[in-house]
Formats: sequence, C-alpha cells, structure tokens
Amino acid sequence: MMEAQQSVPEESAHPVPAPPRRERVFLQKSSVCSRSYFMVVMVFFHVYIINVIALLLYVHYNNGQGELGGPRSRSERLMYLPRIEGIRVGHVQKVSLVPDRLHEMRTLSLKPLLFEIPGFLSEEECRLVVQLAQLKGLTESQVMVPEGQEELAEQLDLSPEEIFNLLDLNQDGQLQLQEILTQSRVRDGIWLTPENLREIYTGLKADPDGDGLLSLAEFKQLSSNAFQRFLQQRGVQSSQLVRNSRHTWLYQGEGAHHVLRELQKRVTRLTRLPPQLVELSEPLQVVRYEQGGHYHAHHDSGPVYPETACTHTRLAANSSTPFETSCRYITVLFYLNSVEGGGETTFPVADNRTYEEMSLIQNDVDLLDTRKNCDKGNLRVTPTKGTAVLWYNYLSDGKGWVGELDEYSLHGGCVVTRGTKWIANNWINVDPDYERQVRYQQLVSQAHSTASERSKPNADPHGDAHQDL
Amino acid sequence: MMEAQQSVPEESAHPVPAPPRRERVFLQKSSVCSRSYFMVVMVFFHVYIINVIALLLYVHYNNGQGELGGPRSRSERLMYLPRIEGIRVGHVQKVSLVPDRLHEMRTLSLKPLLFEIPGFLSEEECRLVVQLAQLKGLTESQVMVPEGQEELAEQLDLSPEEIFNLLDLNQDGQLQLQEILTQSRVRDGIWLTPENLREIYTGLKADPDGDGLLSLAEFKQLSSNAFQRFLQQRGVQSSQLVRNSRHTWLYQGEGAHHVLRELQKRVTRLTRLPPQLVELSEPLQVVRYEQGGHYHAHHDSGPVYPETACTHTRLAANSSTPFETSCRYITVLFYLNSVEGGGETTFPVADNRTYEEMSLIQNDVDLLDTRKNCDKGNLRVTPTKGTAVLWYNYLSDGKGWVGELDEYSLHGGCVVTRGTKWIANNWINVDPDYERQVRYQQLVSQAHSTASERSKPNADPHGDAHQDL
Repeated sequence: MMEAQQSVPEESAHPVPAPPRRERVFLQKSSVCSRSYFMVVMVFFHVYIINVIALLLYVHYNNGQGELGGPRSRSERLMYLPRIEGIRVGHVQKVSLVPDRLHEMRTLSLKPLLFEIPGFLSEEECRLVVQLAQLKGLTESQVMVPEGQEELAEQLDLSPEEIFNLLDLNQDGQLQLQEILTQSRVRDGIWLTPENLREIYTGLKADPDGDGLLSLAEFKQLSSNAFQRFLQQRGVQSSQLVRNSRHTWLYQGEGAHHVLRELQKRVTRLTRLPPQLVELSEPLQVVRYEQGGHYHAHHDSGPVYPETACTHTRLAANSSTPFETSCRYITVLFYLNSVEGGGETTFPVADNRTYEEMSLIQNDVDLLDTRKNCDKGNLRVTPTKGTAVLWYNYLSDGKGWVGELDEYSLHGGCVVTRGTKWIANNWINVDPDYERQVRYQQLVSQAHSTASERSKPNADPHGDAHQDL
Repeated sequence: MMEAQQSVPEESAHPVPAPPRRERVFLQKSSVCSRSYFMVVMVFFHVYIINVIALLLYVHYNNGQGELGGPRSRSERLMYLPRIEGIRVGHVQKVSLVPDRLHEMRTLSLKPLLFEIPGFLSEEECRLVVQLAQLKGLTESQVMVPEGQEELAEQLDLSPEEIFNLLDLNQDGQLQLQEILTQSRVRDGIWLTPENLREIYTGLKADPDGDGLLSLAEFKQLSSNAFQRFLQQRGVQSSQLVRNSRHTWLYQGEGAHHVLRELQKRVTRLTRLPPQLVELSEPLQVVRYEQGGHYHAHHDSGPVYPETACTHTRLAANSSTPFETSCRYITVLFYLNSVEGGGETTFPVADNRTYEEMSLIQNDVDLLDTRKNCDKGNLRVTPTKGTAVLWYNYLSDGKGWVGELDEYSLHGGCVVTRGTKWIANNWINVDPDYERQVRYQQLVSQAHSTASERSKPNADPHGDAHQDL
C-alpha cells in the first residue's frame, strides 16, 4: 500500500523507464483485479471443484461396494442383515453392549444359531422389569377351549376320504396315533398326548378293536368336531393346554421407562441389526410361569411361502392374504429370575443331523412334550437371572436377508417344578419379503412425521396389535 | 511485455495518475510474475493439496471399515477371508465361474462346510488333466514301512509307565484295543485294525490271558518298537497301508498349461479368496486309485497351536518350531472320471451333533476304515466326472481369518471296487497366523521381483516342496 503510492510520483519525476521501477508497479493492491489473474484463479477454482466432486463420487462408490460386498444383488439394497457367527458349539466371543464392560457370548448350538450371554441384565434391571409387568397386569397366555368354532375341514369343504388321505402320512390305509398327533397336535389350544387320544377313542367308541389304529370306516363314523366336543364335555385342565402361563406386553418406544429403552438399545447392539428394525418390532413380552407352568415345544414364527404375509407389515401388504405369521427373525429371551426347580428352555432337536417331524413323536417318547420329556432333548438352558439367550428363527437367504424358517429352532419351556419363573421375550420382526419390509418402514416413518404432533401411543404401530397376542 | 513497455512512457507524459489508466497497467503480461499473485496462487495450491490428501485419507479409512466391517480389530487388516454361506443342507446357490454360464453349488453339510458343484470341469478338461499327470508320471502315495526309524517315545525319553498312562484314556489301569488304536492308529503308514492288533498280541505273546486288554505289567514286557518289528517281519500289503494310490503334482503358475491356469482362476472365483492366496498355494495334486485302492479317513491338515508352523510359510517363520502342518484352509477336490464301482468320498461324522474321537472306533465298527465301513458314515459323495467338491478344513476365527481345525472335516476315499478312480486336489494354504501369512506374501513378492530375470521354476516356492508329499 505504502510502496504503491510512493512509486507513482517517483515515475512521473523521472521520465526514463527503468526495469527496477517497473517491478514495483505490480505490487499495487489493485493487481488482484486484473483480468488474467481472474482467469487463472477461476481455472484453478474449477479444476479444484471438479477434483472434489470426482473424489466424493469415488468415496460414495467405494462405500457402496465396501459396506455391502459379496453378491452383486446386495449392492442394490440399502439394508442388509448381518448374522452373528457361531463358529462352533462352545465358542466364546466378547461383545460390547454397555460402556466399560465386555460381555461374553457363548455359542450353544449352530442349528438353530443360538447364543447365551450371562449378565445381560443386572439384578436391578430384572427386578424392575418384573415390577413394571406386575403394575401393568398379566393375562392368561391361553384361554380354555373356545366354543362354537367351526372346523377348518368344514371351511375347506373336504370329504372324510380326502381328510383321511391327508392324515395318512405313510399311506398304509390306517391312521396311527402318531399320524393324528403330528398333524393335529393342538386342538384349540389343547395338547393331545397318545394317552388322551386313546382315552378319546374309548370315550367316542371310535376304535372298537382297540388297536390304536383308525381305519377309513372307523374314521368316517366320527363327526368332524367329535374330538372337540368330547374334550369340552370332559373339561380341560390348564396343564393340558399348549402353554400354561400369564403374560403382558411392555412398550419400549419413546417415553417408555429408561430401563426398557436401554434394553432395546442393548438388543440392537447385540443383534447388530439396523436400529429401525429393532425399534419397529413387537413390544417386550414378559411371561410368568407358576409352579406347574410349561410351554410345549413350538416355533416362534411360521414358515414363509410367497403368499404368506407378516403380521407386522400388513400395513404395507398389497392385498389380503390367506396366511399370516409373525415373522420373528430373532428371539432374545431374558431370564428375569433363577428358577428353583425346572423351567429350563429346551431345544429338543438342536444340532440334530436331520429334522424329521414324524420322528419327534415315537412310541411313548414325544419330544415336543415339555411336561414329560425335557430330559430327552438335545439341549437345555437353565434359567439364570440376568442371562439372555438369542437365536435365529429363520435361516439366511444367502443374500443378506431372511430366508426359510429354521426348523431346528423348535423350543419349549420345561415344566416349573418349584417356584415361579419370570422371563421376557424380545422378538425382532423382519419380513422375508425385502420390498415389503422397506415399504413398511417408509410408511411408518411417514406416519411418524405426520402424527408427531398427536399423542405418542398412536404413533406406535404395535400399540394395540399385541394386546391379544 | 509489450503493454508494460507502452504504459510507462504514457505515465511519464502525464504526471497525474488516473484510475482508468491504472487498470490497463495490470493487464500487462508480466503481472503473473507479481509477488501478491504468486502468494494467492500458492495459498490456493496448498489448500487444494491439503484437501486432496484429506479426501484420500478419508477414502482409505472408509475402505478399511467398509470392506472389513464388524469387529474393530479387522479394520487394521488389509486382507480377510470371506466364507461361502452354507444356509442349510440341500441349499442350492448359483455361482459365476465361467463366462456365459452359471454353475449350481449345493450344500452337502454344514459341519464341515461342504459344497458340491457339478460340471465344474468339462469332459475335455478332465481328460487333459489326467493326460498331463500321466505325462509327468505318478509315484506311490505311500511307501512301505521304512526301516531303522527311531521310536518317538525314545526321542521324548518317557518311561513305560508314563507312556502307559498317556495311552490309558479312561484311566482304568488297562489298555483296551480301542485306546491303542485311537492314539497309535498309524504305525509308519500301516493302518492297524482291531483284528491285526489281536494278531500282533498273539505273535508277540503280549496278552497271555487273551482278553484283548494290556495291563501295565504286560505293556512293560513289550519293547518300544516291538509292533514295528513284528509287522516288518510279517510283511505288509498295500491294502494294509493308510492310503493305497499313486499321485503327482502339476504346477499351475505362469507358463503352465492354459487349462491348469484356467482351473486356478475358477477356484479363485469359487472360493472368493484373494487371488494371491490361491496362487501361492500348493500345486494341483492328481491321484489315481486302482481297483482295491483306498484312503482311510483323515484330516487334510493338522490342528494349530501357538507353536505350530505352516509348511507353506516356513520362509516367514521367525524360528524353527517343533510342530509343522500343511495349513490347508480349503480343499477343492475334482472328480476326473466317474468310477465304475466304489471310490466314494466319505465324511463319516459330517453334521454329527458331537465329535468324539473315541466313539469313532467302537467294538467292531471302525468309522475311519474306508475299506470296511464306508456305508456306516454320515455322508458319501459319489464320484461324477467333472464334479468338484469344496470344503473348509478350518473354522473361522470370527474375525475374518482362519480359526481352529474343523474336526468334522474328517474324510476318506472308499475302496474302489471296480475300475480306476482319478481325482485332483487343490488345497488353498492359509497360515492361521495372519502376520506370518502377510510376511510370507511380502517375501514371495520380493523374491519374485528380484528373481524375475532368472528361471521361473525357482520363483515358485512350492516347486520342490511338494515333490515328496
């Protein structure tokens, strides 16, 4: 500034142009406004911008590939479901669920992929969840036989011959007890055993020769709902039901008790699933089994066929479908107390080489019966306060999404021989139809944003849905 | 330059400085050499360079996370080993191995993780591999009992009491046949059966009471190499050896036959492993079993302890180690012909719920014996020309690298009852010690670059290593 102002008077005083003076001229401040300077800077600036854009595109492209990896089909999807590696039975891996502590996660079986995490909940947290459940109040998990229900066979309009043929698995022209039980295990919540089936036969005079086999002629004599009517007349005890427990549902979304919120976050960390998936799943189910309580072996979710809809995504389903299942990808079960006697969780066919439905019931050993044969199953988990077990009810589809139902995930609650058993279940619902799950999540987030001014319970899609589960 | 020369006389003619004229001054060409201009450009340039570096670092960091995902420890590693998903037995997935065709890959078992890929090789390729092997010449896979070998017991300096105690698994003070066989199954390549063990007892008068049990007193009467000496005197037939076949090794590196090169590329695509890993593995082993040929059940690789070294990375091992194994992460087995009778590959304990070494040999059923009990194993693969089977000999370590030996990978070649059996093996060698594998690969790539002017066979680390395998 100073130099520039000095240079001009100097030049006018000495008319002969001298090289040293000329250099001085270009140090004037206004030189930054020159056209050539502007041109050079603009070129640099544009090259710079183009480079930044190219690098950002490169970063974006690389991230897309890196995150999803593997088969090409995945790169089109924005969400995928990592599965925890089981490695081998007995393998222990460290997991970070809470600050300042690592939990140990032990592989209990590979079929189903099943893990145990001791100390998942603190004593205090267990106590609180039980109290919250008691405060809300528990209802019978299963009511006694409902009356006046129509038989499925009547709805489907099948002839007795057709039904007989469907039931006769080995096609020997006779119905063994086992064939009746495999397919008609549960009659409106009543759990049939070979003994009470024999009792029904006698009561109905259905099997005159008493060989425990029904011929087509004998079968035709029975009216389609003869079994039900007989059982209803005789009366049913709770120990004869599929499950004998009381339960309630605890909402874990916004505004819920901080321990329930924290529990949900911990489950997200444990399962490594996208948080939104966990948040949009069913509320926490808290279950109490009194002494003598049980839950016969079952699957937490059903098989999936192209026409099957999921309960949680029916919002996003295009049409009404004849079949619906709960689509519980993962079960996380928490033991809220250590049971004095019995009450183990049994996985009767865990890591079996093969799964055959028929071989579950053989002669007098019915592996599904958790009142009698818990000791004969492959795997039993003893309830320990604060321990969580996690298993996958579905296999992977090999492309990062949910595949078929894992039949080996069959499990039940053994009869409680002493004391009370408190557990809680967190089910992670995922629709095996990827597009439907995505559509559902979009619908919910839209509903959330429009309903955010209204009362909160309405925004939760499971608010009412599971009152009756 | 021209403008600059004109402007100075103008200024000298009119002493009063006028703004319009001053603007013209800065359009002079030499303005790009001004100090302020230089300063501004340099600042821009530095900012630009810093931005590019920051973005490159960001890309690098993101790649590291994206590719490896999961546990934090992985992000430090540049290489990881994806495993093919098995999903469930019978699952079929499409794989792209050659242009214009998709192959089907069927899951045969999960323990070990085992797949079958029909049509992996064309008829023509099978024929060519057999011809190349014949051209090179095959050698006996196992020679008869070598003489004059020292007993391991003598080297280890153990007393007879100590050896007896080690062998006595159930600690009942007596050695059952089963206990001898479980631990001394193979004596210098001779496969001991319960029958020939009884024969040895009789020949050596080792078991006077003839109950098939050795007491400590009886055991002490035997010299440490009594078994060997007896067997050598009696003479050994090839059917009594662990394996009864002939084999050769075919180099697949640079300069090898294009079919062998192509085969290696296809294996890389199939296994989804880094190409360098596959390229640095053992050459292709081609094996011929004549009628009566067999290979008793075995593991292709050994268990890994901290002190165990891998044969393929001994270049990179820091010190000499007492144990060495071949570290064959994956076996890819090709059937080069369809065998007329027998010759199946058996996996006796595939998908068993548990693995117990002792229960493999029970009474008269020895599941390891592929001459007798192939029909009693869990899984048998029938040789079909062109079909490949792939299995993992090691589990994952849960962090994207090789873990423990998968004991369920136990397999053998059933006796060929009619015709000849031709197979080929591609083993993918990976050191369970990640650092050692990386060091080894660096060493090899250095050796390659320095030895590239020399003859090619020297640059191949497996050139000589496997002549004697």
